[in-house]
Amino acid sequence: MTKLIKRISTPLISLILLLNMSSAGMAETTVSAEVGFIFNTLLFLICGFLVMFMAAGFAMLESGMVTSKSVSVICAKNIGLYAIAGIMFWLVGYNLAYGIPEGGYIGTFTPWSDASAIDTGYADGSDWFFQMVFCATTVSICSGAMAERIKLWPFFLFAAILAGVIYPIVMGWQWGGGWLAELGFSDFAGSTLVHSTGGAAALAGIILLGARNGRFDSAGNPKALKPFAASSIPLVTIGVFILWLGWFGFNGGSQLALGSFDDAVAISTIFINTNLAACGGVLAAGVITRLMFGKTDVIQMLNGAIGGLVAITAEPLAPSPFAAILIGAVGGLIVVFGTKLLFNFKLDDVVGAIPAHLFAGIWGTLAVPLTNADANFSAQLIGVLSVNIFVFAVSYIVWSVMKAIFGIRLSKEAETKGTDVTETGVIAYAIRD
Amino acid sequence: MTKLIKRISTPLISLILLLNMSSAGMAETTVSAEVGFIFNTLLFLICGFLVMFMAAGFAMLESGMVTSKSVSVICAKNIGLYAIAGIMFWLVGYNLAYGIPEGGYIGTFTPWSDASAIDTGYADGSDWFFQMVFCATTVSICSGAMAERIKLWPFFLFAAILAGVIYPIVMGWQWGGGWLAELGFSDFAGSTLVHSTGGAAALAGIILLGARNGRFDSAGNPKALKPFAASSIPLVTIGVFILWLGWFGFNGGSQLALGSFDDAVAISTIFINTNLAACGGVLAAGVITRLMFGKTDVIQMLNGAIGGLVAITAEPLAPSPFAAILIGAVGGLIVVFGTKLLFNFKLDDVVGAIPAHLFAGIWGTLAVPLTNADANFSAQLIGVLSVNIFVFAVSYIVWSVMKAIFGIRLSKEAETKGTDVTETGVIAYAIRD
Amino acid sequence: MTKLIKRISTPLISLILLLNMSSAGMAETTVSAEVGFIFNTLLFLICGFLVMFMAAGFAMLESGMVTSKSVSVICAKNIGLYAIAGIMFWLVGYNLAYGIPEGGYIGTFTPWSDASAIDTGYADGSDWFFQMVFCATTVSICSGAMAERIKLWPFFLFAAILAGVIYPIVMGWQWGGGWLAELGFSDFAGSTLVHSTGGAAALAGIILLGARNGRFDSAGNPKALKPFAASSIPLVTIGVFILWLGWFGFNGGSQLALGSFDDAVAISTIFINTNLAACGGVLAAGVITRLMFGKTDVIQMLNGAIGGLVAITAEPLAPSPFAAILIGAVGGLIVVFGTKLLFNFKLDDVVGAIPAHLFAGIWGTLAVPLTNADANFSAQLIGVLSVNIFVFAVSYIVWSVMKAIFGIRLSKEAETKGTDVTETGVIAYAIRD
Repeated sequence: MTKLIKRISTPLISLILLLNMSSAGMAETTVSAEVGFIFNTLLFLICGFLVMFMAAGFAMLESGMVTSKSVSVICAKNIGLYAIAGIMFWLVGYNLAYGIPEGGYIGTFTPWSDASAIDTGYADGSDWFFQMVFCATTVSICSGAMAERIKLWPFFLFAAILAGVIYPIVMGWQWGGGWLAELGFSDFAGSTLVHSTGGAAALAGIILLGARNGRFDSAGNPKALKPFAASSIPLVTIGVFILWLGWFGFNGGSQLALGSFDDAVAISTIFINTNLAACGGVLAAGVITRLMFGKTDVIQMLNGAIGGLVAITAEPLAPSPFAAILIGAVGGLIVVFGTKLLFNFKLDDVVGAIPAHLFAGIWGTLAVPLTNADANFSAQLIGVLSVNIFVFAVSYIVWSVMKAIFGIRLSKEAETKGTDVTETGVIAYAIRD
Repeated sequence: MTKLIKRISTPLISLILLLNMSSAGMAETTVSAEVGFIFNTLLFLICGFLVMFMAAGFAMLESGMVTSKSVSVICAKNIGLYAIAGIMFWLVGYNLAYGIPEGGYIGTFTPWSDASAIDTGYADGSDWFFQMVFCATTVSICSGAMAERIKLWPFFLFAAILAGVIYPIVMGWQWGGGWLAELGFSDFAGSTLVHSTGGAAALAGIILLGARNGRFDSAGNPKALKPFAASSIPLVTIGVFILWLGWFGFNGGSQLALGSFDDAVAISTIFINTNLAACGGVLAAGVITRLMFGKTDVIQMLNGAIGGLVAITAEPLAPSPFAAILIGAVGGLIVVFGTKLLFNFKLDDVVGAIPAHLFAGIWGTLAVPLTNADANFSAQLIGVLSVNIFVFAVSYIVWSVMKAIFGIRLSKEAETKGTDVTETGVIAYAIRD
Repeated sequence: MTKLIKRISTPLISLILLLNMSSAGMAETTVSAEVGFIFNTLLFLICGFLVMFMAAGFAMLESGMVTSKSVSVICAKNIGLYAIAGIMFWLVGYNLAYGIPEGGYIGTFTPWSDASAIDTGYADGSDWFFQMVFCATTVSICSGAMAERIKLWPFFLFAAILAGVIYPIVMGWQWGGGWLAELGFSDFAGSTLVHSTGGAAALAGIILLGARNGRFDSAGNPKALKPFAASSIPLVTIGVFILWLGWFGFNGGSQLALGSFDDAVAISTIFINTNLAACGGVLAAGVITRLMFGKTDVIQMLNGAIGGLVAITAEPLAPSPFAAILIGAVGGLIVVFGTKLLFNFKLDDVVGAIPAHLFAGIWGTLAVPLTNADANFSAQLIGVLSVNIFVFAVSYIVWSVMKAIFGIRLSKEAETKGTDVTETGVIAYAIRD
């Protein structure tokens, strides 16, 4: 969703055409500049509030996936990180991304300010809002993986750095018109820029943090589920449905314009492909777990939806419906096998964020040339590698510095008691039957 | 919400008028064809995502209503059926409904493909999306009634047939311009086509399936609530609020167009009537349970909202606000007494889907002529009978064939253990106080 | 959000300009009256359904905050009050507010009826819907504070009076063009008119009702949390996120128009300020509780978001982003210290509605002149005092009369058993681990 200036020309020209009374054919727009401006702004606002609501989706998904002694802290992390992301993206993030020189590497450290004009095609503030919720999504992605043993405030500090600096830099490389955009990299709504970024930051975190106490036995296998059972499957479910809902805004809004016949048709196509990819992810995960393990794993079906959605995010416009289903189904399978892969390395990703966002994001980005003839595989590969290596490396350094200075992991006693008691002093479920 | 081609003429004519500089009065539209196209598409997309979110509403309503040992499976059913419905409605459903010959009975078995053109008045894909979420709603309705004793994959197979064949056929009879439309049947947003269809399919299922073990005592009365207590009232509550929210999209979007003064006014009226009917349903159920049983039954208030919403769905535009309240209140009463009626027949509808969707849907459809002078009672009666008998009969046959081939009911041992353990292997609530 | 007739002129004039072929510059609108009408109506409908969804947010926030033996009743209250508010606002509320004489005190007791015309600038029904959900919000605010010891039906009666009479009267004073509007009072979206009104009504209720049994020890300190622990933190969290989402509609829709460049830019600014104020509230509450009490209180962070949102509601357009953060942060601090203040007076506000809505609403209203040069402090003070004193006094009288006639508080036995058992007969959480 590169901030394209060329978009503007269409409504302006059409206004002139209209005023000149030339017979406007279907190919020429009959939408005045101001009406187009309102439509485009409305698109950003509607899609923006849908993506904003994804913060609730992540909060519920993660609340349901952690054990019942770490739920209040997950809630604190999710409301806190969304607040931090909003402020940081205003303070430095937006201009770090969009203030980048053409083909460059980094923008300027200045707060965002409104510069709306009718010839930019949309209200500046609506674009800020839409981009901000993408930034918050990136941070939400990495909040769940490290649950149950990370200290709260070091996480908040990392959230500020990820939202204010790390994400905006890679965002600028592509959507700000930086070096990746110049290279021909293609990532429509952020399979790599948002989802892999969140996943790669989380991967660095869980490597440095180590697994929860007792998560793996001496042979390296994850313990039987019981002590690490997800606290509430319905909360995971509503979380996934909210994310699915929000994704229509995520991908649909990344068309960046609504004020023309072509844009309205494109957004409709994006809605369909986004939906069908998620369907593919759900069913692939459901079928494979039923066939391989004898039971239909509802958690993998739910995470399979996310895997499908992440996979289609790099290119939700070009695929046919059938291709979208397949791209999503592969995303769902990647979630199932990616979860196994992490177990093999004794990596403890509490909510499955890394398979769903990092792994499925890589797949989705590399798959773009299969359906979009304008994309090429080498640019996709360079984009995937550069973004993921940069985010992983910088995150690893930031986590390491915090670990060295004040520590990032709770004491063994605190972890045993549960983070809710030690960090917030609030029990999550005080339920008497 | 018949797919009317005549809608298109208005914006086209108005464009010509505008370009010809004739003094456009209020009665003539001043909306260009392209602006109208964008508005109509936007209506489908917004209302579509609202209806999509109803899938989450059903998932929460049903999760809260079943006992705590069957919640994970309900979540799996709801995410799975939504995925299945999306794929089936693309693969065959849409063209089975809309590819129907004028006044005919069935369309063609071909996948949907995009044929957007400005003179159809909206993006083809946005219409597909809006119709697809209606199809998914139909399947969601029937998922809860059969809970706690049905096998998961036979349910998924039935979901595929309902979404891909049964619903599209009756949809085509009316909204595709088939024989019911020709007859003068009137069902604005689907009291019968969607809600009764889902309810009739569920009724066939629970008859063949039988009640949960121990649900009724030897005298035929339902056992005291305890062992069959709803697992979470707040989840039911958020489910109902989400459904109520989604219904603005369900009924509002069924106006099918936004791009004129008349359409904007109509959709506003639909919002009001939809809301007031639900209000009537809530209060009627609350008052009657308080008066009859001494306690204000919160579950009946919540289901009363659904009953009111289903009742107004057949005609949300013509009624006055007062009429809408009354239509909804009767819907709420039908939920309360319909629940009793099912008990009398020892029919075990776990979530109350049949009173709320089938019974209230019949009421709403038959009530159309009370407020809409263009409707006539005999056509309404024929529509109600033909759709419900067709759906019930075909569903009964499909369930019976599945029962004969591989069985549809869990073993007694599995039911006692709970479907969560036997079907998904995932406990829904792993909560330590 | 005064119902300004002057808004209409702009699109009408611009239509004339367009038809006259004058070269429409950027300052003059190129939006036809009908397109503007559709945009404005669409704004009310979208923002209206967002605010409607806040009813679910309050239901979840309150369900999570009460103890587990009072959750079903809270759900009944929330679905019931929303139903009551809708009917009362149609029956008398709307015309009590908007039928007020210029500079007057009260409108007329007549039901609302639709009088849409293109020159009012939006569909009458869409405005009714948008105003109705504000009315319902006011009632939602006061439902939680009195939880766990109030009788259900007296609450419903009060809800009818608050929705039908009390709120509409103060609403009319300002937004109907009554005496407060004439005085120069400024309350963009209702920090005082909605939020303080709900809070003041609740304050009167809890004073007359008294605290829950055993809430305060003999020295007047609140008992250790355990017996009064919030039943579910994730439900509080999703409640707050839903409220945050709804607030974009609450404040954004209060711009009352979308059909021009200026309106689209203004709504975008409102979205940003609304969001940043909530961010400020969350972080201020998180930091202060961590510093003062050693633990990061997740409940105060969540209520801090509400405090920030309420504070910005009086003026979400004029502040800079930085000012919005500060206004919200003060709102968050007010929530933390306001909670302490109520404890000092042994006032038992179960969900923290009074600090978040009444106290933060006063702050937000008085802060308007800091960023809006058109506002003056004395008018703000008069508005705050007159609305809060009127609402508190009338509410106090209504509660007192009900207390004298049939009592408003449950028996001690009923309270000990829990309101769920005694009032609805439905256990909220029937969960087996």
